[in-house]
Amino acid sequence: MKQKVFDADLDALHHVAIPVENVARAVDWYRNQFRVRIAYQDETWALLKFANTSLALVVPGQHPPHIGVVHPNARSFGELKTHRDGTASIYLKDSEGNAVEILEDNAYV
Amino acid sequence: MKQKVFDADLDALHHVAIPVENVARAVDWYRNQFRVRIAYQDETWALLKFANTSLALVVPGQHPPHIGVVHPNARSFGELKTHRDGTASIYLKDSEGNAVEILEDNAYV
Repeated sequence: MKQKVFDADLDALHHVAIPVENVARAVDWYRNQFRVRIAYQDETWALLKFANTSLALVVPGQHPPHIGVVHPNARSFGELKTHRDGTASIYLKDSEGNAVEILEDNAYV
Repeated sequence: MKQKVFDADLDALHHVAIPVENVARAVDWYRNQFRVRIAYQDETWALLKFANTSLALVVPGQHPPHIGVVHPNARSFGELKTHRDGTASIYLKDSEGNAVEILEDNAYV
């Protein structure tokens, strides 16, 4: 792949979360097809690191499918909720009803 | 945002395509919320560049929601279809039924 560094003038897509029925089966599929690193996995979701961003595999009844964007002023969107990993974020809907998570910029991509 | 270069040991997520009802309205929403660059836009889909990957906004009847992964040996997945922009890819389904586009590694992230 042609290498490229991040474009600091633009915001970053921290992760995308897509729905799965069976997390373990989906993790197996992705790690068999692609070079990914498994950052987290339980029965309700998993986080797979790609070279430039992460893919979350989520059971929809437990975690909503969404995209996660790192924003330099996430608090401007409303009160953030702090997660166990120390990151803080807020969920909103885009104009089309898609769920978008806004993450503080201390979240590594 | 903390800067980071690509991890060359992992494959890259080239883009994610999420469904929208109205492309123009969605583009307006995203560019009002985030620092993105509009790489392409028509009435059926748009491509927004983030710092590290791209977000496609697609009208589902015209273009399927999916994730796009750059793979060093995309042809191992089957015969690729060449697109107008010179990239070549193949669509498949993951184990959960999500659409996944595999792109040749000449596709810039």
